Amino acid sequence: MAVVVMKFGGTSVATIERIQNVARHVKREVDAGNKVAVVVSAMSGVTNQLVSWVNDASEKRLYDTKEYDAVVATGEQVTAGLLAIALQTLGLKARSWTGWQIPIETSTAHGSARILNIPGDEMRARIDTGEVAVVTGFQGIEPTEKRVATLGRGGSDTSAVAMAVALKADVCDIYTDVDGVYTTDPRIVPKAKRLPKISYEEMLEMASLGSKVLQTRSVELGMVYKMRTRVLSSFVAPDAMQAFDPKHIENIGTIVCDEDEIVEQQVVSGIAYAKDEAKVTMLNVDDKPGIAARIFGPLADANINVDMIVQNITPDGKKTDMTFTVQAGELPRALAVLKQAQADIGHFDIKSSADVVKISVIGVGMRSHAGVAAKMFKTLSDKGINIHAISTSEIKISVLIDAAYAELAVRSLHTAYGLDSD
Amino acid sequence: MAVVVMKFGGTSVATIERIQNVARHVKREVDAGNKVAVVVSAMSGVTNQLVSWVNDASEKRLYDTKEYDAVVATGEQVTAGLLAIALQTLGLKARSWTGWQIPIETSTAHGSARILNIPGDEMRARIDTGEVAVVTGFQGIEPTEKRVATLGRGGSDTSAVAMAVALKADVCDIYTDVDGVYTTDPRIVPKAKRLPKISYEEMLEMASLGSKVLQTRSVELGMVYKMRTRVLSSFVAPDAMQAFDPKHIENIGTIVCDEDEIVEQQVVSGIAYAKDEAKVTMLNVDDKPGIAARIFGPLADANINVDMIVQNITPDGKKTDMTFTVQAGELPRALAVLKQAQADIGHFDIKSSADVVKISVIGVGMRSHAGVAAKMFKTLSDKGINIHAISTSEIKISVLIDAAYAELAVRSLHTAYGLDSD
Repeated sequence: MAVVVMKFGGTSVATIERIQNVARHVKREVDAGNKVAVVVSAMSGVTNQLVSWVNDASEKRLYDTKEYDAVVATGEQVTAGLLAIALQTLGLKARSWTGWQIPIETSTAHGSARILNIPGDEMRARIDTGEVAVVTGFQGIEPTEKRVATLGRGGSDTSAVAMAVALKADVCDIYTDVDGVYTTDPRIVPKAKRLPKISYEEMLEMASLGSKVLQTRSVELGMVYKMRTRVLSSFVAPDAMQAFDPKHIENIGTIVCDEDEIVEQQVVSGIAYAKDEAKVTMLNVDDKPGIAARIFGPLADANINVDMIVQNITPDGKKTDMTFTVQAGELPRALAVLKQAQADIGHFDIKSSADVVKISVIGVGMRSHAGVAAKMFKTLSDKGINIHAISTSEIKISVLIDAAYAELAVRSLHTAYGLDSD
Repeated sequence: MAVVVMKFGGTSVATIERIQNVARHVKREVDAGNKVAVVVSAMSGVTNQLVSWVNDASEKRLYDTKEYDAVVATGEQVTAGLLAIALQTLGLKARSWTGWQIPIETSTAHGSARILNIPGDEMRARIDTGEVAVVTGFQGIEPTEKRVATLGRGGSDTSAVAMAVALKADVCDIYTDVDGVYTTDPRIVPKAKRLPKISYEEMLEMASLGSKVLQTRSVELGMVYKMRTRVLSSFVAPDAMQAFDPKHIENIGTIVCDEDEIVEQQVVSGIAYAKDEAKVTMLNVDDKPGIAARIFGPLADANINVDMIVQNITPDGKKTDMTFTVQAGELPRALAVLKQAQADIGHFDIKSSADVVKISVIGVGMRSHAGVAAKMFKTLSDKGINIHAISTSEIKISVLIDAAYAELAVRSLHTAYGLDSD
C-alpha cells in the first residue's frame, strides 16, 4: 500500500468527459490498493473567464487582490465537487475539500500567496480508510482575515507537492497534457526527446523559464522535501497505464529527482522559452543612490514579480536607463504602480512591450563545460535574431528576443546542442 | 442614517455592465448616508450551468448533495467578489463575504438547508464605519463537517432577509427585474396592476405558488421578524431612484407588510402560477396503514419537497392511487427514490409528467367572502380547461392543470376577478 497524490491540470479536467476520465485514473490507483488524494485545477478556460470578469469589473484599473482571489478561487472548487461526484458515480468513496476546509494555510500575499502549513493528519487518517480526498489546487486561507488566498497561476502543482508532503505520500504524480518532460516543447520542435529523469535543479530552471510542465515553486518544494515527483499524461487511457508501484516507478513519464540519481548527464538537457513576458524600459531616470529601491520596492509591495533587470548608464553619467521584465498579465498593474510612484522616483520616460520572449539553454553539465554561451549567441546571430537582454546562472543562459523569432530560436538551438532525436 | 440590506438577483447581475449598474444603486444609498450590506445571487445562467455539470458528472443518477452544494455555491462567490471590485472602482470601501466567513450557520440539509443563526455584530460594526458588505446569497455553512450548504433555488432572498434581521436593518430591499408585485405576471397579462402594499400572508401564497418575485422562506422570515421588505426594480436608472428614507418608504415598489397596514383590501389580490411543477401518480398501491409514510418518508429523507397530495381509493377498496407534485427539477431524483423504496412500499405502477402548472387565486378577503372558488371553477370550465387536482387554504385556491392552458387560465381569472387595469 502506497499513498499517492495525483494532480490534474486544467486541460485534463476541461469537460465532464475528461473529469470522468480522471475519475478512472483515480479508480485504477484505488483498485491497486493505493490511498489517494487528488489535487485539481479549474476547468480549462474557467480561470481566464474569471480573470477577464475581474478586469472588466475594475475597468482595467488596479483591483483589490483579495477580491480577485475570492473570484478566481471558485474555479477549482467547481472541479473538485464535480470530480468527487464522478468518483462516487464509479462506486468510490470520495469527498471534495476546499483550501480553507483542510486548511491549507498561506501567507497574506493575495494572488501569489505561499503555502505556510498544511495539517495533514486528519486527511491522512481519512484517506487511509479508502476515501479519496479531492482537493482544490491553487488556493488556501490566510491567517489575518481568514480570506481565501490564491498561489498565482499554475499554483495547483505547488498545492499537490505540498499536499504530498503533508500526507507523507510516496509520490506526487502530476498529470498534464504531455507524457513527460521533453528537451523542449514538442509542439514547436517535433524532434524533441522525452527525458526519463531530470534533476530538480534543471527542472526548476525549465519551469521558471516557462516550459510550463511544472510550476516553479512546486519543484522547489519537491527539492526541499525530497518528494518524488512524476510528470505523466492524463490523455493515456486510464487502463493502459500501470498503477503506482514503488518498485517500478521509472516505467513511465519523467521523474524529477536528485542530480546524483541521473547517470548519463548531458551538457545541455533542454531549451526552454517563456512567452508571457513583458519588457518595461524606463528612460532618463536620475542615477541617484537608492533609485533601484524606489522603482522595485513599490512593485514588490504590489506583489509584482520582476524577472530580468538590466541597467545602462547614459553617456553623461547623470541619467540611467532601466529595463526589466514582468509577466505580461502584470504589465498594466506594473505601469500603474510606477506612475503612482513617480513622485518618489522623479522624472522618467517609459516604453513597454509584451512582444518579447525569453529563450533559455539549461543543463547541469554547463558547470564543467565552456563555450555553451558562445554557441548560443552564434546560433542566434546566424539566424539574424537580435538579443535585447541576457541573464545567466550556473546552469542556464537566458536571452530576451522579439516574440516573432521564438520558434525559430528554439528549433535552431535544439539542433545546435545536439538534442534532436534521430 | 439607516441600515439598508439590498439584494440583487441573477438577472440584475447577469453581466459586468449590470454588476456596475448594481454598484451605482449601492453608491446612491451610501451617498445618502445609509449603511449598506448587499446580498447577491449568481450571474444569470451560471447556476444552471453548474447544475447541468453536476447532472452530467453523476450521469443523471443520484448525486451527493454535499458535493452539489460545493459546486453550485461558487456562483454567488464570483458575483460577490466582482461587485466588491466594482464598488471599489467607484471609490467606495467594500469587501465580499462568503456564507462560511460570516458565518451564516445553516442546517445540514444540503441543497435545501435552513438558516439557523447569523452572528451580525461584527459585520454591523464594519458597515457602520461606511464599508459596504457584499454577501453571497443562497448559502451558509453547516455545523457537522463545516461544509458549504445551499438553501435551495431562490434562497438568496432568504439570505437577504436573514442578514437584515442579523444586522438590525431598517429595511430589506429586494431588487428584481420587475418594479413591484403585480396582481399577476405582467408578461402574461399586460393589464396586471402593481400592488403598492401586500400582506406577508398573501405574499407567502404568491411566492410559494410560483409568482417568483420573492422566495417563500424569505417572506416567512420577514413575517416572523417583522422585517420591512420592499420589492424594487434594478433596471430603473440608479440616479432616477430615491435613496432609502424611513419617512418616504412607500414611494416606490411594493412593500410587504402586516395585513393591518393595508387599508383597501381586495377579495382577491392576485393570480399566481407555478410552472416548474411535476406530477407523479402512483397507481395500484396497496391501501394498507402507513403506506403514505412509506412513500413520503424516503422523499423527505432525500430532501425532496412534496407539494399537492391527492389520494383516491379504487372501487375494490384494496388499492389506492396517489398523486402528488414535486419541483420539476427534482422529478428524476423523486422517481429514483421511489424505485429504491419499492421493497417497502410494495408493487405500484407509476406515471409522471412535468407538463403541468399550478394556478392559484389569492386574497386575504376570501376569509369573509363566499363564492370565490365557484367563480374559479366556472371560469376554467367555460374555457374548457380540465382540473387535475385542487388544494385550498384560508386565503387561496390552487388547481393543477395542463401546462398548455397556463396563460389562458391566468388571463381569464385575472379578468373574472376584476383585476384588469383600465
